[in-house]
Amino acid sequence: MLPGFDDIMTAAGRLHGFAVRTPVLESQQLNERAGGRVLIKAECLQRTGSFKFRGAWNLISQLDAERHPGGVVAYSSGNHAQGVAAAAQLQGLRALIVMPSDTPQIKQGNTRGYGAEVVTYDRASQSREEIAARHVKDRGATLVPPFEHPEIIAGQGTAGLELADEAASRGIVLDDVLVCCSGGGLTAGVALAMEARSPRTAVRTVEPAGFDDYARSLRARRIERNASLSGSICDALMSPAPGDMTFAINRRLLGEGLVVSDAEAAAAVRFAFEVLKLVIEPGGAVALAAVLAGKIDTKGRAVGVIASGGNCDPGLFARILAKAV
Amino acid sequence: MLPGFDDIMTAAGRLHGFAVRTPVLESQQLNERAGGRVLIKAECLQRTGSFKFRGAWNLISQLDAERHPGGVVAYSSGNHAQGVAAAAQLQGLRALIVMPSDTPQIKQGNTRGYGAEVVTYDRASQSREEIAARHVKDRGATLVPPFEHPEIIAGQGTAGLELADEAASRGIVLDDVLVCCSGGGLTAGVALAMEARSPRTAVRTVEPAGFDDYARSLRARRIERNASLSGSICDALMSPAPGDMTFAINRRLLGEGLVVSDAEAAAAVRFAFEVLKLVIEPGGAVALAAVLAGKIDTKGRAVGVIASGGNCDPGLFARILAKAV
Repeated sequence: MLPGFDDIMTAAGRLHGFAVRTPVLESQQLNERAGGRVLIKAECLQRTGSFKFRGAWNLISQLDAERHPGGVVAYSSGNHAQGVAAAAQLQGLRALIVMPSDTPQIKQGNTRGYGAEVVTYDRASQSREEIAARHVKDRGATLVPPFEHPEIIAGQGTAGLELADEAASRGIVLDDVLVCCSGGGLTAGVALAMEARSPRTAVRTVEPAGFDDYARSLRARRIERNASLSGSICDALMSPAPGDMTFAINRRLLGEGLVVSDAEAAAAVRFAFEVLKLVIEPGGAVALAAVLAGKIDTKGRAVGVIASGGNCDPGLFARILAKAV
Repeated sequence: MLPGFDDIMTAAGRLHGFAVRTPVLESQQLNERAGGRVLIKAECLQRTGSFKFRGAWNLISQLDAERHPGGVVAYSSGNHAQGVAAAAQLQGLRALIVMPSDTPQIKQGNTRGYGAEVVTYDRASQSREEIAARHVKDRGATLVPPFEHPEIIAGQGTAGLELADEAASRGIVLDDVLVCCSGGGLTAGVALAMEARSPRTAVRTVEPAGFDDYARSLRARRIERNASLSGSICDALMSPAPGDMTFAINRRLLGEGLVVSDAEAAAAVRFAFEVLKLVIEPGGAVALAAVLAGKIDTKGRAVGVIASGGNCDPGLFARILAKAV
């Protein structure tokens, strides 16, 4: 059962007063460089530092602590973990998060900081789905999947809804919206929001090179997987393949997918530091990177960019600033 | 002739469409830590990366290029330089900026990037005022002082006006507003705005230890100078003493001044990176530092914090993240 625009509107109501209505920022310097208008939806300023709180809260706020004593379980490379942990804490639910052992310390620490229990696993040899399923069974917990759930997709879609409404309030018709893409939940939600609120806007995925499963799947019109599960600085965008549900939505609504190199993502992180004064993590910066690296024509056009997260390990951030990445 | 609230309203009209109406951000984590509500006026997201564009544009937008062929001259440790350079470029005027030779490279480079000519001087042995005065005479240029000018103060005051209006729109009466303070222009403008729009709000300066000329001057009720002209990571807050004009306003309107250590400022920069996902330079983070370090009571109170700038040298930022500062 796929979510629709009504579910995004319902989610917006649930999120009101709990999620941040993140600002849509415009930079004169960025506009000049793009030769057009670039609207940045700064989801790095969202509660827990990424858009993930939206979907997590949309689902978890419907769970009652008395009826769900087992709480919630999630698997995540980091941002979903924090979103779920914070949402569960707010709702008074236990949370157990299954995280890859190579997850940046800041994401592991923050997840524990929101009161969740963290269990790590080896990305190369273990299945996070199986580990999570075992804990769900043991605890009688509810699984909060990272993207394959109508309420998760609808929750993420509120970011697109807000961007569409903000652009409209400034009298701007967006030609494109670029979305940092992993499993495709944010992209699907944004695409549904744009279909309803800004139907002339083309929504496009942006992925790191080597992890362009969505771009390839859209081209092939069937789900294709990544060859690797690690090996990019964009640790937030390492899902192995599009989800069935997100792909069903996205294959209908999306334009061609874009791909940027790690070096282009790092340059976007530096640009955000130097010019925008935003902390954007590499995986959250690929949409901005696509604009800066000229992956689409921005001359005389209006482009929305989702800066999807800002949870970057300080050490990696320092290396990026030093141009060592 | 001191500026008043009317001048701030006039400035707001001039700035509309040119300056960024910067967002007022709230962080659940920060509120929990403070035990109250903290509203961050994110002036690091302002055009040129600091509030300084406001005052510069308010003055420079009134200068006609034909009548002012000599353009403008300014002296500045960096943020005012960028504000003046960008405003002059926008207005089609030449700009010459006198900068200390130890100014962070990012500020010198950005100033040149806005088309200005940069002349450096030695902070310890030379007078920036004299150098600037010579260039003003040679060129027939207009001096744009960093704070001692009614239009500069009025321009900076628009940041306070926007903060007051935003707080009111959220139904919040601010108990305090903390302002990062150097020469006192931003503080004076914010104080005038609050007097008119939020008279129950106490406006307070925050300065780095050893450069607390404003706190001491307010206590002594006469202008006192700093003993040193350098030696803090807060390079934006190194003015030698309060201005006559800013002090005349501020002594009437301000509460007691606050002081934070360089270590507390650095901790605030890290907090902004880790939690807020904002790039704030040390001098722009002292107001936030005062909240985080418990320099005022925030329990059950509502406090506005101006994050005045984000132009931090990447090397210094990396050292701060590594806790080497």
